[in-house]
Amino acid sequence: MSPALTRTTVGIVGAGPAGLMASHLLARVGIDSVVVDHRTRAEIGGTQRAGILEADSARLLADSGVSDRVRREGRPHAGITLRFGGENHRVDFQALVGENVWLYPQTDVFTDLADARERDGGDVRYGVTGTRVTDLATDRPGILFTDAEGVAREVRCAVLVGADGSRGVCRAAVPEAARTHFLRAYPFAWFGVLVHAPPSAGELVYTHSPRGFALVSRRTESVQRLYFQCDPDEDPADWPDDRIWAELQARVRGADGFALAEGPVLDRSVLRFRSFVCEPPRYGRMLLAGDAAHTVPPTGAKGLNLALTDARLLAEAVERAVTARDFRHLDTYGPRALRRTWRAQHFSYWMTNLLHRLPGATAFDERRQLGELASLVCSTAASTHLAEGYTGRVVPARRPRKPRATRERPDPR
Amino acid sequence: MSPALTRTTVGIVGAGPAGLMASHLLARVGIDSVVVDHRTRAEIGGTQRAGILEADSARLLADSGVSDRVRREGRPHAGITLRFGGENHRVDFQALVGENVWLYPQTDVFTDLADARERDGGDVRYGVTGTRVTDLATDRPGILFTDAEGVAREVRCAVLVGADGSRGVCRAAVPEAARTHFLRAYPFAWFGVLVHAPPSAGELVYTHSPRGFALVSRRTESVQRLYFQCDPDEDPADWPDDRIWAELQARVRGADGFALAEGPVLDRSVLRFRSFVCEPPRYGRMLLAGDAAHTVPPTGAKGLNLALTDARLLAEAVERAVTARDFRHLDTYGPRALRRTWRAQHFSYWMTNLLHRLPGATAFDERRQLGELASLVCSTAASTHLAEGYTGRVVPARRPRKPRATRERPDPR
Repeated sequence: MSPALTRTTVGIVGAGPAGLMASHLLARVGIDSVVVDHRTRAEIGGTQRAGILEADSARLLADSGVSDRVRREGRPHAGITLRFGGENHRVDFQALVGENVWLYPQTDVFTDLADARERDGGDVRYGVTGTRVTDLATDRPGILFTDAEGVAREVRCAVLVGADGSRGVCRAAVPEAARTHFLRAYPFAWFGVLVHAPPSAGELVYTHSPRGFALVSRRTESVQRLYFQCDPDEDPADWPDDRIWAELQARVRGADGFALAEGPVLDRSVLRFRSFVCEPPRYGRMLLAGDAAHTVPPTGAKGLNLALTDARLLAEAVERAVTARDFRHLDTYGPRALRRTWRAQHFSYWMTNLLHRLPGATAFDERRQLGELASLVCSTAASTHLAEGYTGRVVPARRPRKPRATRERPDPR
Repeated sequence: MSPALTRTTVGIVGAGPAGLMASHLLARVGIDSVVVDHRTRAEIGGTQRAGILEADSARLLADSGVSDRVRREGRPHAGITLRFGGENHRVDFQALVGENVWLYPQTDVFTDLADARERDGGDVRYGVTGTRVTDLATDRPGILFTDAEGVAREVRCAVLVGADGSRGVCRAAVPEAARTHFLRAYPFAWFGVLVHAPPSAGELVYTHSPRGFALVSRRTESVQRLYFQCDPDEDPADWPDDRIWAELQARVRGADGFALAEGPVLDRSVLRFRSFVCEPPRYGRMLLAGDAAHTVPPTGAKGLNLALTDARLLAEAVERAVTARDFRHLDTYGPRALRRTWRAQHFSYWMTNLLHRLPGATAFDERRQLGELASLVCSTAASTHLAEGYTGRVVPARRPRKPRATRERPDPR
């Protein structure tokens, strides 16, 4: 028996932030879509992930009608603290670029998006199995899967969106000759803990110490999220509460007496990461978005923001293509998404290398890192560039009044 | 027969820019010194070296009465060009930080300083042999040498200045336990050529290309200085004119048609470099300055400027010590010099890594470099930070109105 067929304009694999936001934005301009995900709604909503939204991401959620909950329940952060040499140096985003970021965990973003899709009658199918994508290079690509009730289904569409994460089926379905992978591995990971304790700081504290990086972030008045750099092969079972607190306190300790408020550890895990880009983020009628197209180290808090930007750029390209009935408009997605991706890749790589203890680093490397951190907090320009990268708000460079740099000469030969 | 004895306040080993500038500045405040160098005046004056002065370095030369020739014959550069992806992107220092740099080769700086010392009756002894320093940890350190006429000499002083370069006797005389070396080697070098040709560009062009870094700089209307990244073991004899021009043109080539004006190669050499800092830049009554204390890769054009800054900071510390008859004032030199040194070290390292092709670099690394270059020229803040590093003029960071970053809590244990 052939699978039950659904026709739609856009088929979306993956109901994370990229997939649901794309579906939402397309619905706003009258373009129908079907979203499938192998996870249940509860599984997606229960995954602890990133927690910082750029101002533009918060605006996108509110202004596109997903929800204004981020404005009511999110916590604006007007800056971050860089802590090194045992002292705090605040980088004031509001003063430097006139923007906040928002503390608003990815689980809340997902809940808002899932609720909005349900409210607006969106077709989202959670808990499906055996998802495959097919006929990507034709003008009727398809998604094959078995739904949560065990019924074999087929979705045929004009455009397919692969938003199913870094281990999903979509990117894997692109012939190897049609994609290039850019990859950077890191010889360290993050040990992440969720603790029951009052906040130790009002904003995020990014800490450079001779023992390695540590990050202090808050969740609520009684639950905090803390991280410290560790070996990628570290076993969480080797870290009882006492050892975790001793390591965290040793990394943030300084002459100013700063110390973390302690409490029971509710959750502990090792988070490995890498820098990764797939080019182009497209194959035939399939566009890749979010972690399916790229991953970044968590240091710069860019992953979720990139996923939402992808969804916006992708929805714009699809709208142009559908409106004009000319799918060459899909060509605009890749270059626009990649420009943003590579800047975020650079920012994330730079923040990571600025703050982590690099295995094999020499004494020169550590002193140079401290020299860079000192330059950074002593210069308004450098602090502003950090604020731009972190908030996503770039103040464009002045154009020179006239080109003076080179006289272009014909080759004399 | 014991050597002929000269008593002076400051004994200086090395008659390069650091040593002569220190001697000059000390003379201006009435402190006598003796300078010795194993090279003849003609040898020092004939060495091709760096050519870019920060505005403060040009000011120091003019305002301290060395010479205002830099203002008359030096060429102000109001910016540089970053060339990547085959396109020029000008960084306008004047617009960004209100400063120029000056094209004024180190040989001219040396000539000005040597002339000024001669004019002012300074005691500078060129072409000496067998220089040794002694009794550094006492209050009468000494320099032993044989002068150009073959007479054995001894200089006894209250303060000794080691400004005799990276392979000099001064740093080597510090017991190993009393110094820490910070070192970074680079797996590439610069192939430098002096060519008879008209200028190809009005200002310096720092070029990133898939074949590696290249730098276009001018000397005069008919002689130019060009560099391209090469293997440290490259043999200049393997590079006839044609091959040099083909490599340079390939690196600067782009869709804009930019090409170098060619001409006969007058001089070719391979310049190896490294990042190096000796801490502290002091042992007992001996202060280290210039290349004796640190070296930087040439990419950021910092070496000569750091040497002149060292001379200024050192002269200030010595003046305080001599005026107060309290040599604890020498303690101020190291920390001040090191703060400036490490910022310049970071800047030089960063410019080097931004623009060179790193052996073993992956496709990710190259794309990330291009992402960084794009961020740099697209952001006023990032361009300004580059301009600050290059011109030495830092716009200080605003102080936050009140500390908001962290609530400092007592350790609850």
